Amino acid sequence: MSSTWEQQAQTAKDILQDSIPKQWLVPAHQLPSADEKDIEGFARKSGLLSEKELAITDLSATSLVQEMGAGKLKAEEVVVAFLKRSVIGQQLVNFATEFLTDRAIARAKELDEYFERTGKLVGPLHGVPISVKEHIGIKGLACNAGYVAWVHDIATEDALLLQCLEKAGAVFHVRTNQPQSLMHLCCSNNLTGTTLNPYNRTLSPGGSSGGEGASTGFKCAPLGVGTDIGGSIRAPAAFCGSYGFRPTALRNPMAGAKAPEPGHESIRGVIGPLASQSVEDLDLFQRAVIDQAPWDTETSLAPVPWKRVTPKKDMTVAIMWDDGCVRPHPPVTRALKDAKSKLQAAGINVVDWEPYKHKHGWDIISAMYFPDGAASQHTLINETGEPILPLTAWAFAYSNPTPLTVAQAWSLNVQRDTYRDEYHALMKSRGVDFILCPTYPGVASVLGESEYWNYTAVWNILDQPAAVFPSGLKVDLELDRLSAEDEAYVPRGEVDEREWKKYTGPERYQGAPIAVQLVGKHFADEETLAAAGLVSGILLGEKK
Amino acid sequence: MSSTWEQQAQTAKDILQDSIPKQWLVPAHQLPSADEKDIEGFARKSGLLSEKELAITDLSATSLVQEMGAGKLKAEEVVVAFLKRSVIGQQLVNFATEFLTDRAIARAKELDEYFERTGKLVGPLHGVPISVKEHIGIKGLACNAGYVAWVHDIATEDALLLQCLEKAGAVFHVRTNQPQSLMHLCCSNNLTGTTLNPYNRTLSPGGSSGGEGASTGFKCAPLGVGTDIGGSIRAPAAFCGSYGFRPTALRNPMAGAKAPEPGHESIRGVIGPLASQSVEDLDLFQRAVIDQAPWDTETSLAPVPWKRVTPKKDMTVAIMWDDGCVRPHPPVTRALKDAKSKLQAAGINVVDWEPYKHKHGWDIISAMYFPDGAASQHTLINETGEPILPLTAWAFAYSNPTPLTVAQAWSLNVQRDTYRDEYHALMKSRGVDFILCPTYPGVASVLGESEYWNYTAVWNILDQPAAVFPSGLKVDLELDRLSAEDEAYVPRGEVDEREWKKYTGPERYQGAPIAVQLVGKHFADEETLAAAGLVSGILLGEKK
Repeated sequence: MSSTWEQQAQTAKDILQDSIPKQWLVPAHQLPSADEKDIEGFARKSGLLSEKELAITDLSATSLVQEMGAGKLKAEEVVVAFLKRSVIGQQLVNFATEFLTDRAIARAKELDEYFERTGKLVGPLHGVPISVKEHIGIKGLACNAGYVAWVHDIATEDALLLQCLEKAGAVFHVRTNQPQSLMHLCCSNNLTGTTLNPYNRTLSPGGSSGGEGASTGFKCAPLGVGTDIGGSIRAPAAFCGSYGFRPTALRNPMAGAKAPEPGHESIRGVIGPLASQSVEDLDLFQRAVIDQAPWDTETSLAPVPWKRVTPKKDMTVAIMWDDGCVRPHPPVTRALKDAKSKLQAAGINVVDWEPYKHKHGWDIISAMYFPDGAASQHTLINETGEPILPLTAWAFAYSNPTPLTVAQAWSLNVQRDTYRDEYHALMKSRGVDFILCPTYPGVASVLGESEYWNYTAVWNILDQPAAVFPSGLKVDLELDRLSAEDEAYVPRGEVDEREWKKYTGPERYQGAPIAVQLVGKHFADEETLAAAGLVSGILLGEKK
Repeated sequence: MSSTWEQQAQTAKDILQDSIPKQWLVPAHQLPSADEKDIEGFARKSGLLSEKELAITDLSATSLVQEMGAGKLKAEEVVVAFLKRSVIGQQLVNFATEFLTDRAIARAKELDEYFERTGKLVGPLHGVPISVKEHIGIKGLACNAGYVAWVHDIATEDALLLQCLEKAGAVFHVRTNQPQSLMHLCCSNNLTGTTLNPYNRTLSPGGSSGGEGASTGFKCAPLGVGTDIGGSIRAPAAFCGSYGFRPTALRNPMAGAKAPEPGHESIRGVIGPLASQSVEDLDLFQRAVIDQAPWDTETSLAPVPWKRVTPKKDMTVAIMWDDGCVRPHPPVTRALKDAKSKLQAAGINVVDWEPYKHKHGWDIISAMYFPDGAASQHTLINETGEPILPLTAWAFAYSNPTPLTVAQAWSLNVQRDTYRDEYHALMKSRGVDFILCPTYPGVASVLGESEYWNYTAVWNILDQPAAVFPSGLKVDLELDRLSAEDEAYVPRGEVDEREWKKYTGPERYQGAPIAVQLVGKHFADEETLAAAGLVSGILLGEKK
């Protein structure tokens, strides 16, 4: 009965291949050549989507719902458009683990029938196609969470968050890729392989919700569901030019998201949205979920309703240019400078943010990731003998060689709470409402190179809500050359040097969009999204 | 430099003795003889308090604030009255660890001056004397938490909850006793000895907030502050005829409450009020604290404002007659029967509650109390060689002989959350708003006999809010005799038999008040107190 890990992994490949709607495949010879990096515009060139379908996939979730509510679009044509685009995306960047074509179309038809019968929408997400990271369980479907050992594990229930989204009218049409261990800011596993960045296929789409980054970045879905314990929603959103939100923990329901270490609470993964078009859609997602009072089912959640917050310019945004540990690459710094001048021009109070003990934050969170010495993960990997991928080994290296005792784990909890309280008090005493900062040292990582997480992970240990959105700028071959000052930079140590040396020049990251991250206070999720919407609009020059 | 544990413990005895305001001591020959059990009425007989002072100590916190707001009482005379009563209480039941006479009077004078100057009260607790369990730190004062090893530890800050209470106008006048380890439902330590029950000095005042039970039971304070991880607020309130409330965790601030195992979060101790007069005062306390948004300082708290809830009779109360493990003693069952008929007569929907896996709940929580094999506690005890008291040994026996691994601790967390979600769903599916049940198998325990905690602890593992209040009945030498049916009862096992056999007849518990416990849903703290106020009023025959 024994089989090799390759044989077991084949099951995941088969699930994916069998699920692809073959009628929509672009013939191989019409695809861009493998060395064509930027394929972001290929959906149009492919000829597979009609003009109307292309227009549909350019709409935000909010607009889609409006159009369906006005009777101008049908859920079925919407999901078909996104399914077609997903097939192209799959051919180009390998972002999916399973297509849900038939059930998505059947569901869309049900919604259309309901609308025809009643003249009403089912809910605030009526007919919105949503892609879902694979480890978020769907009843009756295998859920491997990036481990070959779990390739035959069937989810017995829909994850609670998916139940909420579905009740609000969502349609799940495609499941998306994640890295082995769920602990890379890249997206590669021994099951369905590596996902690429649609803006530059030598770059990573980010991780661990890398499939979601590619999905929303290539507009395979207007909304996606990811998870984040160190940057896993935000890095993909940043790398792929889309939008992402890490809510405060204990707001969105986690039941049914599969991972090793269930019951490990010192650092909590969160589940949240990515969006292809707008911050507004991130808020729509959150509102649709939390309005259903998920704490009445998953009692460990905080019973905090989703407030309606009106964005207002009367706020102080502090810019963190550098976390005191790793110098951001030139394009990232340029985007922050651009943001500063635009925000000031818009009348927003902008100050500088001096980071507070970010290295200390990293020391705490990195010790918390694998308190059992990564035994849970090693056991799973050893079960099949699948190879440990380089970035898995990189992540596991954070763990103690021996498991922590419960008392050592408690001591970390105390350090965490102290750090949180101090950081919160500091924001208050400095009169700062939001911190605008990089998401990552660079605009994206080259495939396999994502090593420094702490521009995102620090907000996980601090449990502060953080939204990522495009700055409106892209890497520029002229503007982003290393300056004389850059050339003269003396790194503050090994880590800083490693990250800084990755930036040999803009060519290496050509085509990549540049994102920024806006961070709010603990539990100020609604205010953070409202401010992010305002800032995003200012950066993109939207008229309000 | 070494000293015996007795020498070190003497420090705590000295702190207590030196702090007692000697001018108010009742001469020893005027005190009731040691074999006089019920001394609850002695405050009047002593002659130490004037009629006005006796009347003051009969007022609720709510009434005291009203009287002070109307200019009819001064904070100084109020605190002096309660201080005097506290001195008598101390002589009779040894409930205090330290009197704060001078600072309390100085603080009261400040409040009076403020009122005279402005015509306004400082806050909702203006001038209310509050007694405080010793392990809740007060800046500059020693905080031993029941351990000889900590007898010289000075708190560097006021506990955050005390800061909130003080800002609301409270006056702290006496600190109160707790058992070694804080893990008895009795109240005995190697520092200042054993606290007795004012209704019957052969009985325990309960624990671990036993000093608070005695304080509020003897009306040494209208309000007190206790902590509860298995019944430590509710047992004292029940045993001493007062009122107590265990809020949902993460509502009241815990910072500055000292105990071993900081950072242990699987089961959280909570801090909350006891009151001598009414459920309304419990709500006043909660409101005064949570209206100050303590989560803006202690960021691990849930940012849930204190709602104003109007009690309404349109509710379903389910009575749990027995937890399926240990049969309550006859007086407790009689009080529940009495409650049932009074509630029904008042038009409230009353049904029976079938308990759901309470033994399972106990298995989870008891394994969580000392995940490190009680190493934290043993280390502290061994530091001085103080003897391990019998009920400490009893509690430690719950712990694994060897420490849990972090993975074993995680597995317990998962069991806990599953049990919570199931219990919550069950209350909803049965249409039950509140559960009315015993607080303890008996009305109180004989000193040193408190062994079965799970009528309270189950609500700790479920993290449901629970209020304890008097049924209005007392142990009755006629009505509470063992019936023929009682005599024929065949216990369901060893534990049931042990607890049942303690009830040899009402004489053993003579004089004791009988309490009931009302339990609400997770985070429904305000609704629980509103309902408890309504039920309490009905049981006591108050006209509304």
